[in-house]
Amino acid sequence: MKDYLKHHEWEIIEEGFDPHLNKISESVFSIGNGRMGQRANFEEEYSGDTLKGSYVAGVYYPDKTRVGWWKNGYPEYFAKVLNAPSWIGIHISVDGHKLDLAKCKVEDFKRVLDMRTGLLTRSFAATLSDGKKLRVLSKRFCSMANGEVGAIRYAFTPLNFSGKITLSLYVDADVVNKDSNYDEKFWEEVSKEASPGRALVVAQTKKTFFHVATAMKFQITTHGKIVTVDRINIEQREKFAGNVFQIDVEEGKETIIYKYAAVLSSENHPKEKIAAQANHVLDDAFAKGFDKLFDEHAKVWEHKWEECDITIEGDIAAQQGIRFNIFQLTQTYTGEDERLNIGPKGFTGEKYGGSTYWDTEAYCLPFYLGTSEQKVSRNLLVYRHKHLARAIENAQKLGFKDGAALYPMVTMNGEECHNEWEITFEEIHRNGAIAFAIFDYIRYTGDEDYLADHGLEVLIGISRFWAQRVNWSADKNKYVMLGVTGPNEYENNVNNNWYTNYIATWTLKYTQEAISLVKKKHGKRFEVIADVVRLKEKEETSKWADIVEKMYFPHDPKRDVYLQQDNFLDKELLRVSDLKQEDRPLNQKWSWDRILRSCFIKQADVLQGIYLFEDDFSIETIRKNFDFYEPMTVHESSLSPCVHVILASKLGYKAKAYELYLRTARLDLDDYNNDTEDGCHITSMAGTWMSVVKGFGGMKVKEGKLHFNPFMPDQWKSYSFRIEFRNRVIKVKVSNEGVTTKLESGEPLEIVLKDEAVMLS
Amino acid sequence: MKDYLKHHEWEIIEEGFDPHLNKISESVFSIGNGRMGQRANFEEEYSGDTLKGSYVAGVYYPDKTRVGWWKNGYPEYFAKVLNAPSWIGIHISVDGHKLDLAKCKVEDFKRVLDMRTGLLTRSFAATLSDGKKLRVLSKRFCSMANGEVGAIRYAFTPLNFSGKITLSLYVDADVVNKDSNYDEKFWEEVSKEASPGRALVVAQTKKTFFHVATAMKFQITTHGKIVTVDRINIEQREKFAGNVFQIDVEEGKETIIYKYAAVLSSENHPKEKIAAQANHVLDDAFAKGFDKLFDEHAKVWEHKWEECDITIEGDIAAQQGIRFNIFQLTQTYTGEDERLNIGPKGFTGEKYGGSTYWDTEAYCLPFYLGTSEQKVSRNLLVYRHKHLARAIENAQKLGFKDGAALYPMVTMNGEECHNEWEITFEEIHRNGAIAFAIFDYIRYTGDEDYLADHGLEVLIGISRFWAQRVNWSADKNKYVMLGVTGPNEYENNVNNNWYTNYIATWTLKYTQEAISLVKKKHGKRFEVIADVVRLKEKEETSKWADIVEKMYFPHDPKRDVYLQQDNFLDKELLRVSDLKQEDRPLNQKWSWDRILRSCFIKQADVLQGIYLFEDDFSIETIRKNFDFYEPMTVHESSLSPCVHVILASKLGYKAKAYELYLRTARLDLDDYNNDTEDGCHITSMAGTWMSVVKGFGGMKVKEGKLHFNPFMPDQWKSYSFRIEFRNRVIKVKVSNEGVTTKLESGEPLEIVLKDEAVMLS
Repeated sequence: MKDYLKHHEWEIIEEGFDPHLNKISESVFSIGNGRMGQRANFEEEYSGDTLKGSYVAGVYYPDKTRVGWWKNGYPEYFAKVLNAPSWIGIHISVDGHKLDLAKCKVEDFKRVLDMRTGLLTRSFAATLSDGKKLRVLSKRFCSMANGEVGAIRYAFTPLNFSGKITLSLYVDADVVNKDSNYDEKFWEEVSKEASPGRALVVAQTKKTFFHVATAMKFQITTHGKIVTVDRINIEQREKFAGNVFQIDVEEGKETIIYKYAAVLSSENHPKEKIAAQANHVLDDAFAKGFDKLFDEHAKVWEHKWEECDITIEGDIAAQQGIRFNIFQLTQTYTGEDERLNIGPKGFTGEKYGGSTYWDTEAYCLPFYLGTSEQKVSRNLLVYRHKHLARAIENAQKLGFKDGAALYPMVTMNGEECHNEWEITFEEIHRNGAIAFAIFDYIRYTGDEDYLADHGLEVLIGISRFWAQRVNWSADKNKYVMLGVTGPNEYENNVNNNWYTNYIATWTLKYTQEAISLVKKKHGKRFEVIADVVRLKEKEETSKWADIVEKMYFPHDPKRDVYLQQDNFLDKELLRVSDLKQEDRPLNQKWSWDRILRSCFIKQADVLQGIYLFEDDFSIETIRKNFDFYEPMTVHESSLSPCVHVILASKLGYKAKAYELYLRTARLDLDDYNNDTEDGCHITSMAGTWMSVVKGFGGMKVKEGKLHFNPFMPDQWKSYSFRIEFRNRVIKVKVSNEGVTTKLESGEPLEIVLKDEAVMLS
Repeated sequence: MKDYLKHHEWEIIEEGFDPHLNKISESVFSIGNGRMGQRANFEEEYSGDTLKGSYVAGVYYPDKTRVGWWKNGYPEYFAKVLNAPSWIGIHISVDGHKLDLAKCKVEDFKRVLDMRTGLLTRSFAATLSDGKKLRVLSKRFCSMANGEVGAIRYAFTPLNFSGKITLSLYVDADVVNKDSNYDEKFWEEVSKEASPGRALVVAQTKKTFFHVATAMKFQITTHGKIVTVDRINIEQREKFAGNVFQIDVEEGKETIIYKYAAVLSSENHPKEKIAAQANHVLDDAFAKGFDKLFDEHAKVWEHKWEECDITIEGDIAAQQGIRFNIFQLTQTYTGEDERLNIGPKGFTGEKYGGSTYWDTEAYCLPFYLGTSEQKVSRNLLVYRHKHLARAIENAQKLGFKDGAALYPMVTMNGEECHNEWEITFEEIHRNGAIAFAIFDYIRYTGDEDYLADHGLEVLIGISRFWAQRVNWSADKNKYVMLGVTGPNEYENNVNNNWYTNYIATWTLKYTQEAISLVKKKHGKRFEVIADVVRLKEKEETSKWADIVEKMYFPHDPKRDVYLQQDNFLDKELLRVSDLKQEDRPLNQKWSWDRILRSCFIKQADVLQGIYLFEDDFSIETIRKNFDFYEPMTVHESSLSPCVHVILASKLGYKAKAYELYLRTARLDLDDYNNDTEDGCHITSMAGTWMSVVKGFGGMKVKEGKLHFNPFMPDQWKSYSFRIEFRNRVIKVKVSNEGVTTKLESGEPLEIVLKDEAVMLS
C-alpha cells in the first residue's frame, strides 16, 4: 500500500517526481473517452521506467497462446489489448541535450487529474545536462465529445537561456506490447504521410488486419501569436512520421505547442478512406482549437457527473476514491457501441488481455444501469447476443451439442482466449451471470421486450448448456454438476459448487418463464426464435423442469448453511483471524495446493449467490451463511468485498460493511495490491459503486419499484448518490439527520424508502 | 500405429528410406551405454527432417520455466536433458556435391540395430546431384566396456567414378535443443584444439557449468592399408573443431574411415584436466582399434543378455518387442553410478526433460532387481537418499516443516522442475512409491541393512510429509487427504484418492517397523539417525499410528469395491466399450474437463494399489475391483497396462492379460502412440518386462522366497526368462508341456512353483 497521492475531492494530485512511482501514476492518471485511451506517459522522451500505453477500443491482436503444458481444448490464441500507435510525442532538445526527466534535475513536478473535466495537467521545471532550465506545463485530454480526438497543450519557458530549441512532433506505430507472449511487435505499416505541420500513419495489426489511422497536426504560439517555423524537416521511418524543426526561444518567454490528434479505427471507417477521414477529423479539431474542444469535452463530463456523482462528506479520501472509480468507469465505457465492452484494465494497461470477463455482467452492469441511460446497459447485453454463435461453437469444442452455449471466460470477439483448464473449461458460472444480467436489466428497466429481441435466444443457449453439463447421480438420486470452479477461485475442479448449481437451476427456471412471456406477448417472434434455435419446446423444457426439481445442493444440516461444494466440511475450518500476517496475501505466500485444500475463500460464492437471489432466502439464512463464510474469506479478489458489503449492510453489520468497503475504495489510488503499475482494476471499481449504492444505500429494485434502505457509516458525515431509473434521475442523500430523496428529473415516481412507499415528484 | 520395421528375433531392421519415418527410426535405432547415448542420426550431412541427439548422462540445463499462468510455488527452472556436442559427423562431398540423403537418390537403404551386440549398421547407395554414385556402409556403437568411447566404421565405395572426395570430420558443440523453452542454445565454448587427424572441443553448459570434452581421432584405410592424407586443413569456428581434406578414390574401391570419439564429463573428471584426459581416452581407443573395441563391447552385451534375456517362441514380433525393451533399458542405465537415473526417454530424445519420475521406483526398479546385480537397484535407492535434503527443501517451499520430505515429480538434481499445479503439488503419491521401493528392494534382496545405511532417513522424511499432509475431518471423524492427484491423472485435485491414502498409511506403518528393526539390529546407528533427523520418536510414531488407525478410505458397500476417490459414484458409470472409436484416445479428442468429469481412467490407481499390496486383499476383493475398474480404464498411459496384465494373470483372465500385454510390447517399434519420433518410452519398457515376468510368469517374492505361477498365453509356443535373485541366475521356461526352472548359476535355492516348494540346484 502506498499513500503518495494528495487527497482532494475532485482531483488526483501527485507532487514531486519519484521515478519508482512513475508507472503507478501512469496508470492512475490515465485518460480516455470510451473509444481511445492513454496512459499518463510523458510527451517528451523518457528513458526511465515506463509502460507506454495508447489504446483504441475494439482493436486487438490474437497472440499465440503460451502454456507450460497444453490441454486439449485450449484456444490457439489469446486476444490481447494492443498498445496502439502513439499520438502524444513531443520531443525537445536544446543544443543536443534532451529533455528527458530520467536524466534531468526535476523540480516542482506536479501531476493533476481533474476528474470533473477529464483533464490531465503536468508541470515541472527541468534542468538539462548542460544546465539549461525549462519550465513545462502540459495539459491533455481525450475528447468525450468526439471519441476520435485527443489534444495537447504543451507550454514551455526557458528559465535561464535564450536560443534555439529542437522539437520533434510525430505519430509512431513502431510500438511494443509488454504483454506480448513472444516479444513480437503487433503493428505493420500500411501507409504514412507527413508534411510541414502534420503527419499521419496508417498501421494495421498482424493477423486481425485492423487499420488504425493516427494523425497529428500542430500549431505553436508565443504570447498568443502563431509562430511560423522557417524550415521543417520531415522525419519518416518505418511506421513513423513526424516533423523536426528548430524554433527560437527567449528566456522567460512561454512557447505553447498545440498538438491535435485524430485516431480512427477501421471498426468505424472503411479502410480505403481511413487516412482521408483521419485528416478530416484532424482538420476539424484543429479548426476548433484547444479551448473550444476542451469546452465541449468538459460539458460532456459535467453532464456525466450530474447523472452519477456520489458525494461523501467528512472523508476526503473516500470522496476522492469513489469519484476516481466513477471517473474511470465512465471514461472506459460510454455504451454507444455495442461491439465494445469493459476490459479489466480499461484504457490503463494491457494486462489480462481480452475485453470481457463475467465482471461485466456481475459488477459493471449494475453500475451502468444505475448511472446511465438504458441503451448503455442494453448494449452490454446485445454484445453477448452478438457472440451467441461463437458461444455455441465454444461449447461444441468442449463436446456440447444441439445449440448449447458456453460463453468464454475471457474474450474479445466472442472466442475463448483463456487457457487454464480449471478456469477456461470449469469456471462456467460465467454463463449464469450472463443469463442473470438479462433478468437484472429487465428488472431494472422494465424492458421486457428485450427477451423477444435478443434475450431469449441467449437464455435458451445457456439453459441447454446447463442441461448437458449436469449428470444424473445414481448414488445421490439427484442431478449433480461435477468438475467446476466457482467464483471462489481458491477451489478448483470441485463437485457441486453450490453457487453454480444454484444459478444453473435459476437459469433453467427463468428461461421457462421467458419462453412463456415471449410466447404470450410476441407469439410470432417466438415462433421465429423457436425455429431458428430448433427448440424442441416440450422435450427441452420438461428436461429443464426435471433438473430444477431434482438438483442437488450441498447443505450442512447441523449449521443450516449451504455448503460451498461437496466435502467442504472435510476441511480444517479456520478463520482468517487465525492467519499470521506473514501468510497474507495467501496467493503470494502459499503454494497453490495449500490454498486449495485450506478452507480460505477468495470470494465467498455462496454469499455471491445469496446476494443475487436474496429474496429467495430468509434473513436468518443469510445471517447464518454470512457468519459461516465471511470469517473464512480473505477477499483476495478485488471483486470480493462489494458483495459482502451489501450483505453486511443488509444484516446491520455496519462496522464490517465499512471495513470491507475500505478494501476496494482506494485500491488503485493507494496501490493496495502493489500492481497498479500494470493498470487500474477497472471492473472492480463498479463494485465500489455498488458498495455505496446497494450496500450503504440499500438500493434494489423489486417488482418494478426502487427500494432504498440506507444506513450511515459512522466515519462519514453524509453521503449522497444519484440514480438513473426509468428516465428519472433520483438523488438520495443520507446523513445523521436522516435520508432525503429527490427527483432531479423525469416523471413522478413512487419509491420504497425503508419499507415505506414515498412519492417523488 | 506403423508397421515398417521387419520382424526379427535379434535385430531391428528398416529397409528402404522414407524421410517421413526418419525421426521415428532415429529414436528406435538409438544406441547408448549408460553414460552416453546417440540417436540414429546420420554421420553425413542431412538437410531433411531430423532430431539430432547426443546425450551425456547427468548433464543438464535448468531452462527458465514457461507457463501460461504462474502459480505460487512453481519452480523457476525445468532441468532439461541436453542435446550434447556431436561426435558422429563425417561430411562427404564430391566436386561440391554433398552426400545428403535428403537430396540424393537413395537405393538399397538398410538400417539394422543388432541388439545382441548393440551395433548400429546402415548401408545404402546414393546418387549425388551430378550423377556420381557412392555405396556406404556405416557401423557404430557406444562402448559398453568403456562408457566414454564411441566408434564409427564408415566405409564408402565410388560406384561410377574415380577422383577426389572431400571429407570433413569434426566435433561440434554448436548444437540446439528442440525442447528449449526460449530457443536458446545451452552450450558455450571453453576451449578447442585441432590438428591433423584429431580435434577436440570442451564446452560448458550455461548456468550449470558442466564441462563436456568431446574429442575425435580418425584413420582412413583402403584395402586394409592406411591412407596418408597429403594436406589436412584445420576447420575451427565457435564451438567447432575438425579436419577438412581431400582423398583420392577409385571406382569400385572401398575406403574406410574409422572415427573414434571420447566424450568425458566434468561429473567424472576435473575440469582443468578434462581435455587432456579426453585425449588420453581417445588415444587408448584409437590404439585398440575398431575391432578390438567392438569385441570388448560385444562381450559386455553377451553377459547382459545371459542375465536378462526373455525368449518367446511362436511369435517373432513379440520376441523382438520384448528384447527391444530389455535392450533399451540395459543401455540406458547400468547402475554403476548412483548419481544417475532413468529418464523417460533415456538416450533417445529430449522430451519431458528431467531424469527421474516415479516411473523409476514403480516400474524400473523391479526390472533392475530381476535382471541385474544388487548394486544396480541399490544405486537407484541411494540416488533418492542423496536427494533427501532437497526433498525436505521442496516440502518446505510448499509449507511443510520439521523434516517432512516431498520428492519432486520430475527432477535432475533433486530439485522439483515440473510446473503444473495439479501434478507438481498434488501428485504426491510419488512419495509413496519411493518409500515402497525401499521395501521392495529389501524384500527382493534381503538387504535389511539398507534401512540403517540410508533407507530409514528417507522413510522418516516421507512419513512426516504424510502426517502433515492429512488433516482431521471433524465431519467424517477420520483423517482425510484433500486435493491430490493419483496415478490416474484423468482426475485432478480430488479428495481421498484411495491409492494415495493407502500408500500413505502403508508408509507410516512400514516406517514404524523400520524404526524397530534398525533399533534392534543397529542400535547405535539408530541413535545417530534419530539425532540427525531430530526424531521425536514417541510423539511422531504415535501420531503416525493414530493416522494409520483412523485413516479414511472411500468404499462402496453395495459393490464392495474401494472408491478411487470421494464422490466417484456421482459420475455416470460407463464402460470403455461404450466409447466411439472417434473419441479415442480421449486425451486427444476430449477437452480436459470432459475427461475429468467422466468415469474414464487413464490408469486404474485402485488396481495399482492392489497390485503393490496384493497380499492385503483376498482374491475376491481383487476380482471385484478389477471387474469394476478395468472396464472403465482407457490405458492412455504407457505405464498402465502392465499392472493390469499382472492382476489379470493372477485372476486367470488370460485373454485380457494378453490383450493388455500387446498394448505396450511394441509401443515404440510400431509407433503406437504416434510420438516415437520424440524418443522411445524407456521407463514404460520396464512394464513390459514386468508383464511377462510378474504377469505371465507370476513371479513374486514373499517371505524371502521366489514364487512363480506361470501361465501360457494361447498365442505362443513357449517363453522363457532369466531372473537374477540373491546371487543366482534362474531360468524359467514355460511351454504347453509345462514349466521348467533351472538354476544357471549360484548356490542351490528353494523356490515356490505354483504354490509348491521346489529345490533348484
